[in-house]
Amino acid sequence: MEALDYHAEERRKAEFDVEEMKIVWAGSRQAYEISDRVARLVASDPVFRKDNRTMLSRKDLFKDTLRKAAHAWKRIIELRLSEEEASKLRFFVDQPVFTDLHWGMFIPAIKGQGNEEQQQKWLPMAYKMQIIGCYAQTELGHGSNVQGLETTATFDPETDEFVIHSPTLTSSKWWPGGLGKVSTHALIYARLITDGQDHGVHGFIVQLRSLDDHLPLPGITVGDIGMKFGSGAYNSMDNGVLRFDHVRILRDQMLMGVSQVTREGKFMQSDVPRQLVYGTMVYVRQKIVADASCALSRAVCIATRYSVVRRQFGSHNGGPETQVIDYKTQQSRLFPLLASAYAFRFVGEWLKWLYTDVTQRLQASDFSTLPEVHACTAGLKSVTTSATADAIEECRKLCGGHGYLSSSGLPELFAVYVPACTYEGDNVVLLLQVARFLMKTVSQLGSGKKPVGTIAYMGRSEHLLQCRCEVERAEDWLKPNVILEAFEARAARMSVTCAKNLNNFANQEEGFAQLATDLAEAAVAHVQLIIVSKFIEKLQQDIPGKGVKRQLEILFNVYALSLLHKHLGDFVASGCITPKQGALANEQLRLLYSQVRPNAIALVDAFNYTDHFLGSVLGRYDGNVYPKLYEEAWKDPLNETVVPDGYHEYIRPILKQHIRVARL
Amino acid sequence: MEALDYHAEERRKAEFDVEEMKIVWAGSRQAYEISDRVARLVASDPVFRKDNRTMLSRKDLFKDTLRKAAHAWKRIIELRLSEEEASKLRFFVDQPVFTDLHWGMFIPAIKGQGNEEQQQKWLPMAYKMQIIGCYAQTELGHGSNVQGLETTATFDPETDEFVIHSPTLTSSKWWPGGLGKVSTHALIYARLITDGQDHGVHGFIVQLRSLDDHLPLPGITVGDIGMKFGSGAYNSMDNGVLRFDHVRILRDQMLMGVSQVTREGKFMQSDVPRQLVYGTMVYVRQKIVADASCALSRAVCIATRYSVVRRQFGSHNGGPETQVIDYKTQQSRLFPLLASAYAFRFVGEWLKWLYTDVTQRLQASDFSTLPEVHACTAGLKSVTTSATADAIEECRKLCGGHGYLSSSGLPELFAVYVPACTYEGDNVVLLLQVARFLMKTVSQLGSGKKPVGTIAYMGRSEHLLQCRCEVERAEDWLKPNVILEAFEARAARMSVTCAKNLNNFANQEEGFAQLATDLAEAAVAHVQLIIVSKFIEKLQQDIPGKGVKRQLEILFNVYALSLLHKHLGDFVASGCITPKQGALANEQLRLLYSQVRPNAIALVDAFNYTDHFLGSVLGRYDGNVYPKLYEEAWKDPLNETVVPDGYHEYIRPILKQHIRVARL
Repeated sequence: MEALDYHAEERRKAEFDVEEMKIVWAGSRQAYEISDRVARLVASDPVFRKDNRTMLSRKDLFKDTLRKAAHAWKRIIELRLSEEEASKLRFFVDQPVFTDLHWGMFIPAIKGQGNEEQQQKWLPMAYKMQIIGCYAQTELGHGSNVQGLETTATFDPETDEFVIHSPTLTSSKWWPGGLGKVSTHALIYARLITDGQDHGVHGFIVQLRSLDDHLPLPGITVGDIGMKFGSGAYNSMDNGVLRFDHVRILRDQMLMGVSQVTREGKFMQSDVPRQLVYGTMVYVRQKIVADASCALSRAVCIATRYSVVRRQFGSHNGGPETQVIDYKTQQSRLFPLLASAYAFRFVGEWLKWLYTDVTQRLQASDFSTLPEVHACTAGLKSVTTSATADAIEECRKLCGGHGYLSSSGLPELFAVYVPACTYEGDNVVLLLQVARFLMKTVSQLGSGKKPVGTIAYMGRSEHLLQCRCEVERAEDWLKPNVILEAFEARAARMSVTCAKNLNNFANQEEGFAQLATDLAEAAVAHVQLIIVSKFIEKLQQDIPGKGVKRQLEILFNVYALSLLHKHLGDFVASGCITPKQGALANEQLRLLYSQVRPNAIALVDAFNYTDHFLGSVLGRYDGNVYPKLYEEAWKDPLNETVVPDGYHEYIRPILKQHIRVARL
Repeated sequence: MEALDYHAEERRKAEFDVEEMKIVWAGSRQAYEISDRVARLVASDPVFRKDNRTMLSRKDLFKDTLRKAAHAWKRIIELRLSEEEASKLRFFVDQPVFTDLHWGMFIPAIKGQGNEEQQQKWLPMAYKMQIIGCYAQTELGHGSNVQGLETTATFDPETDEFVIHSPTLTSSKWWPGGLGKVSTHALIYARLITDGQDHGVHGFIVQLRSLDDHLPLPGITVGDIGMKFGSGAYNSMDNGVLRFDHVRILRDQMLMGVSQVTREGKFMQSDVPRQLVYGTMVYVRQKIVADASCALSRAVCIATRYSVVRRQFGSHNGGPETQVIDYKTQQSRLFPLLASAYAFRFVGEWLKWLYTDVTQRLQASDFSTLPEVHACTAGLKSVTTSATADAIEECRKLCGGHGYLSSSGLPELFAVYVPACTYEGDNVVLLLQVARFLMKTVSQLGSGKKPVGTIAYMGRSEHLLQCRCEVERAEDWLKPNVILEAFEARAARMSVTCAKNLNNFANQEEGFAQLATDLAEAAVAHVQLIIVSKFIEKLQQDIPGKGVKRQLEILFNVYALSLLHKHLGDFVASGCITPKQGALANEQLRLLYSQVRPNAIALVDAFNYTDHFLGSVLGRYDGNVYPKLYEEAWKDPLNETVVPDGYHEYIRPILKQHIRVARL
């Protein structure tokens, strides 16, 4: 029996080798193969089933999550998976759980901030999961401003211990994942106080729960902080609250890789440069950008497949209606998001390289690229996560009414994704950090200090401030160098304008505060330029496979020109392009959409997502949407009985006009 | 004991009479008083409690909703509430439920489309709720395109009945609220077929469930379509699926106000002009715009109050950190939304007037304003709901991490609001309808036919196409006539440009399809102009109360100039303003934000929302946020036990390294 495939016709239209594109998307053949194998492994295991997730009560969802985590660990051990494979497996299980923090934050932080002995003591237990750890930094009253944390760790020289304490309600640890119900240990950030002196915020390993009966240890109040956005989504995670009432820990539970406290209570900075922590930061942000391209591509895959199935209006003589993907309004909303998924993927790949580069430099005590790397990663985290959050919701709207059903997968994808905009640095705060770097770069332009890396273009600011875009016909907008120069000119001009306006303020800090919105916009321009230029670099690589490179060129042009259209005000007001050239870009964009259209299904097939991972009836590989939507509906608990619970108490009395006498 | 009020200091700062502003917001003193009284009534009734809503399972939530609906009905009868008061009461209960459709769609449709006898037969039963009705139009495969519906109503002259049938899976009725579990009757839209001829889509009243035992009648398959976006939110509603297997109804159950089928099976159009249905449409859309201002103002109220409580960075010498509302980045995101809430409120008020105006005209058979009214209401529905959906999510982000908690109220507000973008006309489809009207208006400009109402400005297009904005200094942007002309010029130029580009296509329909995105943008420009001009008209009215008018002027300027900044590309590329003038507008905007700041709390107090209705710990009137967040957390079901359910099966075996041998 031939498998049903409503998309078969669409798949035949593709003008490129989709198998090769899968490898491009995955980054390498090896990455593709691992990913493919592990994804199938997860998809075929009934324990990892997730189609009923949004219907579970909080307690049932949480228990289901614990079950999956235990099963994942069992499979990882049984199959002797490598670290990369294990991490992929957790990724494809696709349900936030305490192990995310144990592996992703607790262990890396001990590695990064613990000294040799501490690593030897704690890491083996953590690797074997004999202890489970979380990362407790933010407090009820304190988020982005780490230096404002209130929890204290006061050294008691008499007992050689630290006393960990929550002096106020707002100092309660709040949000850490895995804290609420599961973790046995936590990495706590607290103000170090020795001999009455405050030495700022440092990390401490604190045991929270007994390893025998899981009860909280004396002095510790811990619990879950309650429901979060959506059903399913992050409610599988026990984000927690934690208060300390003078809890004592041994002195050697302060992470001493960077600073120490001696037996006498003397605080000592180590000679290890503090900049080393930047390496970890680049690593975490690179992961966030990779996650952005993943979440975005999932949403785009669902919306694209459903836009091909869904038909509306345009029926001629009783024939079928038009596929909604054929409408230009649908294309102009969907295809830029498809292009963005690829763009974010490639810039994420480059960030991986940047991480190895910066690690090598740090080891060689070369800190010269750090400010640029910091600005670039902060900016990319901000821009890609904001764009992805918006894009998921846009994809949901592109699915019309049915996108509102949980079975479309999009509501949960949105709910689980959006915190990326506020965690690991609030996106607006990060843009202002980028802006500070931009202003510093502009102020040093005359000094002979040459800007490097992603900011190198500022070295050509003299040219960029007065160059004229040479586009005369729509097809001129297909040239990467024309696009690049327009984006460089826009970014340079916006930064230079901000710098000039800053000079009108006697107090620079006051000026920075007043012009913050303009500065954030300049930062966005800079970051979008980075993404555009990394996409161009990708195109300059050797890309095998029939038609693959051609598709990427089209996507590049869609990405860049749709951004240009969206930010037309920036480009035109700064004189980088004329209104006429803006209109030509728009015209070219329309032509590009027609080129994407026949390849759309294959371009989302290239993400190689299983139906299990997508978790969407609308995004099914075979396009068999309507029968499955119908089938799913009947699984709702409300359909367990024909007459609903509550009919006799609340509906019948109304219908029978007994409402006046009924005591409700 | 004095009541705690962390916002007291902020309230003292206000430079206007907040009590008078409450009346402006409500529309009249009477409206304010009714609203205030009913809101308190609901807030003080323990049955209407909703703070635990997001924690309930689907079945418990649904039962809770039935209970509230029955209780609301009981209170309405006991207190002999007027129709307006009853509707307000349901509004403040703030939980989607079958009565929304019964009162809001089923009854109005019978009134609008039934003939005299039908109204006399059905309405009294409906008013007393002896029957409960829903409105079943959309199908699994058919949404916006009503003419594509597949359900059939075939007249059988032998028995004088219609046979209602669902010929395909995609013809299953899908989405109607109240259908899934509650309604006894439905207003069904189906293709009328008499004597083998298809007469298009008409309405039929069909009984679905027995009035005795609530079981579905023979031939009817009915159920709930399953979970929707979020927890709580619209999951309180039984949106339903419905299939007919040759269900027979009497001939007089076809709504015959506009068309009839005779005993012989002859189809007859009535002489009542079909345009009469537009009256209902204006009514429904006016309500949607009012709902938009309501949802938006709730979100803004929460974000504003929390932005005053939340402090971050900027501590000097250990003093308190800066209130986040004092950051320009926060102001530039929040205050335009505050201004939009007021702008949408006023345009909604004007739509109420338009409804009475158009009703009077229709009764006098004056159909001249209909195309303009249709375009205007379609456009306002689209623009205000899209802006509101985005704004709620932006307000959530403005609350930082804590906005992600259900107890912030914002996730549920978003989840319950977003369907407004796709129901009652998909927002993009509606914009294209506006664009068609705009193109028609442009094409008739030379014909001597004078554009009227909201499109009157097109009559001055010759001037608007070449006028120059005269702004020289930032404060010039405070003049309403300067702003109005800029918005008129932008809208006119974008429409005229589209019309010119359309002329390049041999086939107009093909051109319309190709240029759809540009056309939609021109429609947005036209609709934003309407909102701006109605705000100006409001300012020209007599507005009593100290400082009230002044605040509205500031909000108007914020609304208009923030739009101008957001759409700078439109204004500059079309030559309506120069880049320099755009920069001046931005400068003025910054000054305006400083003027809003001291009044921000009072401006959201003016919405007069109870804490019950807001449903947000972050938005509490008294600002006592942190202790309440802490308190709420412990109510989560996960905190019922210290050691979580699942510990023994799934956590302990990992910690104790029994995972290899354990059978999971």
